[in-house]
Amino acid sequence: MPFALDPDDVRRAFSILGERLATLDARVDGLPISPGGGVPGPDRTGAVPLAVDIPQDPPRALGAEGPLTALLDPTMAELDRGMIQVTARRYFGLFNPAPTAASALADALVAAYNPQLATTQSAPYLVAAETAILDAMAERLRMPGAEGTFTSGGAEANASALVLALQRAFPDLRKKGLRGVDADPRVYVSTEGHDTFAKAVVAHGLGEDALRPVAADGAQRMRPEALSAAMVEDIRAGRRPVLVVGTLGTTTSGAIDPLAILGRMARKHGAWFHVDAAYGGILGLTPEGAPYLTGLEAADSITCDAHKILHAPMAAGMLLVKHRGLLGEAFRVPASYMPRRSSDDPFSRSLQWSRRSMGLKVLLPLQLFGWEGFREITEGLFALGRALRAGLTAAGLTVVNDTPLPIACITHAKGGPGLEAMRRSALVRANAWTSLGRLSSGTRVLRACVTNHRTDASDVAALVEALREGHDEALAESGA
Amino acid sequence: MPFALDPDDVRRAFSILGERLATLDARVDGLPISPGGGVPGPDRTGAVPLAVDIPQDPPRALGAEGPLTALLDPTMAELDRGMIQVTARRYFGLFNPAPTAASALADALVAAYNPQLATTQSAPYLVAAETAILDAMAERLRMPGAEGTFTSGGAEANASALVLALQRAFPDLRKKGLRGVDADPRVYVSTEGHDTFAKAVVAHGLGEDALRPVAADGAQRMRPEALSAAMVEDIRAGRRPVLVVGTLGTTTSGAIDPLAILGRMARKHGAWFHVDAAYGGILGLTPEGAPYLTGLEAADSITCDAHKILHAPMAAGMLLVKHRGLLGEAFRVPASYMPRRSSDDPFSRSLQWSRRSMGLKVLLPLQLFGWEGFREITEGLFALGRALRAGLTAAGLTVVNDTPLPIACITHAKGGPGLEAMRRSALVRANAWTSLGRLSSGTRVLRACVTNHRTDASDVAALVEALREGHDEALAESGA
Repeated sequence: MPFALDPDDVRRAFSILGERLATLDARVDGLPISPGGGVPGPDRTGAVPLAVDIPQDPPRALGAEGPLTALLDPTMAELDRGMIQVTARRYFGLFNPAPTAASALADALVAAYNPQLATTQSAPYLVAAETAILDAMAERLRMPGAEGTFTSGGAEANASALVLALQRAFPDLRKKGLRGVDADPRVYVSTEGHDTFAKAVVAHGLGEDALRPVAADGAQRMRPEALSAAMVEDIRAGRRPVLVVGTLGTTTSGAIDPLAILGRMARKHGAWFHVDAAYGGILGLTPEGAPYLTGLEAADSITCDAHKILHAPMAAGMLLVKHRGLLGEAFRVPASYMPRRSSDDPFSRSLQWSRRSMGLKVLLPLQLFGWEGFREITEGLFALGRALRAGLTAAGLTVVNDTPLPIACITHAKGGPGLEAMRRSALVRANAWTSLGRLSSGTRVLRACVTNHRTDASDVAALVEALREGHDEALAESGA
Repeated sequence: MPFALDPDDVRRAFSILGERLATLDARVDGLPISPGGGVPGPDRTGAVPLAVDIPQDPPRALGAEGPLTALLDPTMAELDRGMIQVTARRYFGLFNPAPTAASALADALVAAYNPQLATTQSAPYLVAAETAILDAMAERLRMPGAEGTFTSGGAEANASALVLALQRAFPDLRKKGLRGVDADPRVYVSTEGHDTFAKAVVAHGLGEDALRPVAADGAQRMRPEALSAAMVEDIRAGRRPVLVVGTLGTTTSGAIDPLAILGRMARKHGAWFHVDAAYGGILGLTPEGAPYLTGLEAADSITCDAHKILHAPMAAGMLLVKHRGLLGEAFRVPASYMPRRSSDDPFSRSLQWSRRSMGLKVLLPLQLFGWEGFREITEGLFALGRALRAGLTAAGLTVVNDTPLPIACITHAKGGPGLEAMRRSALVRANAWTSLGRLSSGTRVLRACVTNHRTDASDVAALVEALREGHDEALAESGA
């Protein structure tokens, strides 16, 4: 059989893999954090895509240890140089926490057993595992008893919330579609909210005009009076507010919208209230986060990504829905010519059909470390976030955002070029990865976020020092 | 740090994992193929979901070898009893081919390195790997030079094709949405086509009324004259045909729609022609499949699942699009208030955003076995399919479908109860998994498909014998 692998080759490959993964953390910390070791330019073209060849014939010789073992070294070499090392301690970029070896073990098992999660019957244990995780997250995010589904990521979770909101607003929608409903639907998201909604309104047939970006205040939070004005204006014009999105932790600055007020406004005008807590849901893991969750009780649905807050590998999005049965209503398959299906099956409760187990890679770390372990890790990240802000301020840098989340947005007197100099300095001097961003006010910022459970005070100090040096150099260069 | 794992524990766990995976095939073949070992009833409730507990505190003792190692046994025990064993040689169910250990190794690496595939810059090597696979598949499916994207599965790929078709049909759609366009769109799918389209028309705002199920002929192929009549009727009524779906390999019976004719009809009426080759794309892997691909040249887009035809673990859907640049047009993010993004980045070319590498688990087996290895495996599956049909016919059973794909649909004179008796017999006597289905003609069938690269003639013979015994028992029981 052409697919047969020598069992000794498999044993050897996984044994070597284990050896490598046991020490991967330290090795990744020593790699250039940037793909190819280069410094990407402001147009993000620094990393050149590589060519990958797929052979026509099986290679004749791939090493005496066997072909699978022989593939391990070159593959790891490509991963070493061919990606941003998001698992490195000095990765201060967007929310990509480093997973533990438990998730790698889980994903290897999922790949080997290949369970089919379309129906409960196909994989009852793994469906139950996902349900247990979703139930626990619903509890922590003030939506006890909610129903949920794993999604391919936050984009699918947010788009699914839009579908739910539309179906609830328009009883005729399932049958007649958007062209058959009696008012133009409108969706309200802060100008600091996530672009997935801009993608979803187009893909789901509403069009760009249906998206109402609502102004944010000086702290990047949606302005309730702007939301109210927009909804009133739309209603007067005969349009229909269907979805208000509150963001718990914006991507750029970690801002938290005034959820309780937004929820009341949504309810007043009959709109679905969705909270995009893709990353901000991390506040549900620690008692110190509790005050910031106020208003989640008002949500009809919540997006929260396990690959952002539960240190799972991508992609493990989660959608929680307060109203039981609605997922099955929205995503069941209506075709009368097909056999009757159970609306309890996962494929009847999400946009997806055949799918992988997303829960096992979340479950194993949870079983190892308990919710208590995740609380401890989370509090450590938050403490480092405070240290980061304090360090930046002490170094004379300007932090312009205000959030309990470990995200700092830094400005530079020289604008974009100053920020790029800081970013380059962080890369070159500290091998640290940060992001550039722009607040909806137009202010350009360098963004640093503590997202790795291995990051410690020395990493934060190294980042601060490198940023300060870059900051001052840019000032000096411009003759300031 | 609460997440720290003893390196020796990691080494040991992966070493044991390798030992288990080296011999997994034989072990899985020896497991009850049905979850819990039970025989599911006709209402599919045979498998009872299990409860999964997540601890609050980290377990104090999880074995002297370390907690990760200690988790391996109970987790594998749950997988052993808690799922349909799709990787077993006698799994003759829906298209879930057994992956090799190379994919498990790849997925462990992906979980450990956690590359972020939203942008090319984040993971250039892995983006290049996915592009290489998509390019090669486009070549094999008669769409050389096409652009493509990996998707969470066939459902997302098919829904994405619908989005492309709509955007091309209505230049105003992006801005104004479906309510702003000048005609009611209609989508045409065979009554044997996949239910993902029924889901997509609802989720993407068209509504059920927009889906036109087109009658199939006695061989489960879409009837071109029925398609033509439906389109003409719609056009006369002022509606607009936007999407014609041809199926290359229907789920139930492996039927192949007359693609060339359907493509011409779609073009004549200005509709997008999409071919759902989620499984039938396997015909592109072998020269003997070539005659059946006729008409793919006419397709504007093709769905093809790597987790169905390239023996990859779920989920690895693929969408191929003939017209370069259209994916970037359809899925780019339009919001003017966000920083400029590259339309070459994966997140700008699909419904997803942050996502996992889906390509590495496909690439490693391809690098090991080459396209030639996949050709050989595919031809083996097809040969066993012919043996299955011949065996069934020789055993006096009635095969009612006609396809080059290794799928047999079998009827029973006693209808449903007869089929259930056959299915139970296959399970109990041969530990073989088959499916029940219904053709759009109303005929109920037992469906057996050869999808596992380890299945051999003895497995097929055992299945045939068990089905024959179940068949005859059901006849005898009813006094026939």
